[in-house]
Amino acid sequence: MAAPRSVAAALRRTRLSSRCRCTHTIFTPTVVQTPRHFSITTSNRADPYKKIQLTAAAYPQIKRDPRFAEVTKEHVQYFKQLLGTDSALIDGVNADATDDLAPFNSDWMRKYGGQTRLVLRPQTAEEVSKILKYCNENKLAVVPQGGNTGLVGGSVPVFDEIVINTARMNKIRSFDQESGVLVADAGVILEVADAHVGEHGYLFPLDLGAKGSCHIGGNVATNAGGLRLLRYGSLHGNVLGLEAVLPDGTIIDSLSTLRKNNTGYDFKQLFIGAEGTIGIVTGVSILCPPRAKAVNVAYFGLESYEQVRKAFREAKGQLSEILSAFELMDGRSQGIVRESTGNKPPLEGEYPFYCLIETSGSNTEHDLAKLESFLEHVLGEGIVADGVLAQDETQIQSLWRWREGITESLSHLGGTYKYDVSIPLPELYQLVEDCKNRLTEKGLVGDDDSFPVRAVVGYGHMGDSNLHLNVSVRQYTKEVEKAIEPWVYEWIAKRNGSISAEHGLGIAKKEFIGYSQNDTNIKLMKQLKNLYDPNGIMNPYKYI
Amino acid sequence: MAAPRSVAAALRRTRLSSRCRCTHTIFTPTVVQTPRHFSITTSNRADPYKKIQLTAAAYPQIKRDPRFAEVTKEHVQYFKQLLGTDSALIDGVNADATDDLAPFNSDWMRKYGGQTRLVLRPQTAEEVSKILKYCNENKLAVVPQGGNTGLVGGSVPVFDEIVINTARMNKIRSFDQESGVLVADAGVILEVADAHVGEHGYLFPLDLGAKGSCHIGGNVATNAGGLRLLRYGSLHGNVLGLEAVLPDGTIIDSLSTLRKNNTGYDFKQLFIGAEGTIGIVTGVSILCPPRAKAVNVAYFGLESYEQVRKAFREAKGQLSEILSAFELMDGRSQGIVRESTGNKPPLEGEYPFYCLIETSGSNTEHDLAKLESFLEHVLGEGIVADGVLAQDETQIQSLWRWREGITESLSHLGGTYKYDVSIPLPELYQLVEDCKNRLTEKGLVGDDDSFPVRAVVGYGHMGDSNLHLNVSVRQYTKEVEKAIEPWVYEWIAKRNGSISAEHGLGIAKKEFIGYSQNDTNIKLMKQLKNLYDPNGIMNPYKYI
Repeated sequence: MAAPRSVAAALRRTRLSSRCRCTHTIFTPTVVQTPRHFSITTSNRADPYKKIQLTAAAYPQIKRDPRFAEVTKEHVQYFKQLLGTDSALIDGVNADATDDLAPFNSDWMRKYGGQTRLVLRPQTAEEVSKILKYCNENKLAVVPQGGNTGLVGGSVPVFDEIVINTARMNKIRSFDQESGVLVADAGVILEVADAHVGEHGYLFPLDLGAKGSCHIGGNVATNAGGLRLLRYGSLHGNVLGLEAVLPDGTIIDSLSTLRKNNTGYDFKQLFIGAEGTIGIVTGVSILCPPRAKAVNVAYFGLESYEQVRKAFREAKGQLSEILSAFELMDGRSQGIVRESTGNKPPLEGEYPFYCLIETSGSNTEHDLAKLESFLEHVLGEGIVADGVLAQDETQIQSLWRWREGITESLSHLGGTYKYDVSIPLPELYQLVEDCKNRLTEKGLVGDDDSFPVRAVVGYGHMGDSNLHLNVSVRQYTKEVEKAIEPWVYEWIAKRNGSISAEHGLGIAKKEFIGYSQNDTNIKLMKQLKNLYDPNGIMNPYKYI
Repeated sequence: MAAPRSVAAALRRTRLSSRCRCTHTIFTPTVVQTPRHFSITTSNRADPYKKIQLTAAAYPQIKRDPRFAEVTKEHVQYFKQLLGTDSALIDGVNADATDDLAPFNSDWMRKYGGQTRLVLRPQTAEEVSKILKYCNENKLAVVPQGGNTGLVGGSVPVFDEIVINTARMNKIRSFDQESGVLVADAGVILEVADAHVGEHGYLFPLDLGAKGSCHIGGNVATNAGGLRLLRYGSLHGNVLGLEAVLPDGTIIDSLSTLRKNNTGYDFKQLFIGAEGTIGIVTGVSILCPPRAKAVNVAYFGLESYEQVRKAFREAKGQLSEILSAFELMDGRSQGIVRESTGNKPPLEGEYPFYCLIETSGSNTEHDLAKLESFLEHVLGEGIVADGVLAQDETQIQSLWRWREGITESLSHLGGTYKYDVSIPLPELYQLVEDCKNRLTEKGLVGDDDSFPVRAVVGYGHMGDSNLHLNVSVRQYTKEVEKAIEPWVYEWIAKRNGSISAEHGLGIAKKEFIGYSQNDTNIKLMKQLKNLYDPNGIMNPYKYI
């Protein structure tokens, strides 16, 4: 449907005629299992049809570093004594433990395959300290691992690195109801942390699809961005303090709970986004904002990317302090969700672009008034072609699933080449168009099974200039990969974008860092790596 | 006046009866010259009655480092050729230039006195690079200096360090109206930067009293906090990129304009708050939020600090996303402003505590409704004893001056021992009480001139747990100083507070860092200092 001529009528229609046709029954857990709720199973055999390729085979240019020792029975004996209980380690050295080790040797996408034979699960910073000191002295390489929900293979071993998993460091240490400051172990699950502060009217200032599994320590180590960075800002601003352990066993106790503390270099910032390459985060102190009493979600169809940009400008101006998310989904991404789930879309017509807007504020009436005024404006001006406004929490969840369900729906189609990038807004979506054209010109895209590429889709966090470019393929082929890479990185570098907006480098993007960082910066990063981890035992083969 | 019995009447009275008796004429620039508008004069002779003590004399334990060379005529010749114009340097080596050098050799409080004989004023990062490379090779110590508005002597030389002033690096490089990202030279004055983005409906996410003089590069280098950190967060979250020069001349070009960029260690964070000890910030990329269309300010009197805490909790809960400042002033601080200015106070009665609340939002009507509901609640519950709400911009400015004018009013009384500290909220104000009791017990406080201490006052950014403890003295004496220090730092350390919330370390707090940082952290800081500045030429004798 085109932009209604009558703004008032359009608005009335939007609000009053139960336009939101997403009902609770449309999305049942059995139909759409969004990443928000996935969890690590104890065995990968649950999905036997999808064989995991060893990362070492997928990246034959990476060789095991001969400086590193192999784990021996004596090493295992030391760790058993140190940790005191059998449940604190999974020992594949003294016996076959392939199945038990499997979930630690791969990721939830089953894309990366490691070969660890030992998983350690310490409970305290002191235990982590003793582990790292021993590993450092004995040249044993390690991989820190939280909820293992990353997308770039950062938390999965490549060879036989020891996995140090934070799952047993899962205590909430304190929460101050007056200041909103939470102090917790690194292994606390994000959803648990959020629920804890939620009981006191606060919100964990980070939300992402994997919240049911990911650890807050991992969030910090990867500088996770997520759905509401637009509103609550980055972890560099919200993390007030950290406890971390350096490779030599030094415990950094910098767990300040103060908003302001200008007494020296803020070196804890280096751990935010270091992906476990200079130390292991064991505790986090974070500032939580008051939880919004009123949350509203609207979903729009738009005729062009230019209209999306206009809508975003209007939303920033008119919704301002209550805007908590502005998400972009292209038409193809929503078609794939529809096909995958069989659900009826929120809007009757089809549009080349869709947006999801969320507001979070302290007063329902005020927020609705602002949102309605915004709707009236963007509908009246023809910026937005059609839209619906969720009427209750169920509809809010349903609308969100049209955004959050994209990853899951794509995964049902086969493989996906995923690119998580930052691009200045004017050209943000152009990357999807250019990529689609390029692959089409090369004869790689088509509807029948003879073409490797099924679809090129784009979606992401418009409010953060963060695009997720996804190339859905029937099978992974070198031909497609070569057509995309390094072309995609060159395209981004020309626009001064980032080849990794929020997913990090891990192993997937390690070799492409030069597209987003100049030689000086890379040299300085290597200098820091050498300063803190001269033996290179921390998460080797990755990052820089 | 006690808490009104009738909430409705109180509210009506607050809003409708022109209760705000601060009018424009009360505060004229000739009566109160707040720090907001102070500027660096070209000569200190403007204030001849106040002789500046040399820092080297005030801190006799600090000796000039013999590793550093003295500036020679040959050095000056090199810099003249490099910078190309005479106006780019002030040369006290070839001729007497005491008067011209004076403003660079002291601070606006006239508390610190340096002995530089050479001021360099480069215009580009390339010039800064060549200067630093030359200084590093020739062992010439330097002091980076922005607007020189600091409070801890960080930007004033101690001996004959060369001053590298950023005033001529004053170009706005770009502003993106869509993303709100400003890129500007380090020497742009904060107020100029704010005005520039203000033309496009945005706000610089930092505001402080010295905005008319301070440079944004200096703000970043000192991790300035200011009045609205509560709302817009710290520079660690808002600074997206930096351009900086290391002592060896390396130019770090990390001027990203992206909100998200997870491609390596975020080492630019180290420069935020490093006070010019590892390099010089030459360019800043910063994210600006939309400028609030509606700003409201209320001023309250309260009967106890417990009531202040309650009011803050209520404000956080009820004003939530529109709360942009919650400032605390004790009764004595307001009395001093009244005596200094002769102005009529906003409230009729006198109270032991006062608060200033500011809201910033996008809808005047909504914000007023929230504020009125809040007022009704806190008046009705007896949390707040009396209050006024500014009716227009002039009244807003007038009310703010009761907070911002404290520093200026104190300075008219004589000397002030200033402590800028973070303390968990429950005990925030207890420090003022304890300090007052301590000095009183020692017989140091009194109304007549025989007592060295005139008053102990407390005020600050309640929303950030940031207290400014000020001890107003008739004269600086060792007796008073010894009574306060290190007792005050011990008091703070016991409560896990910070001895410097936002002012930094400079020279004033260098020796006390151990009260807020443990040995491990200090060791790690020294390691970073040595990594980037092995010759120690950057801002020596300060920080760590």
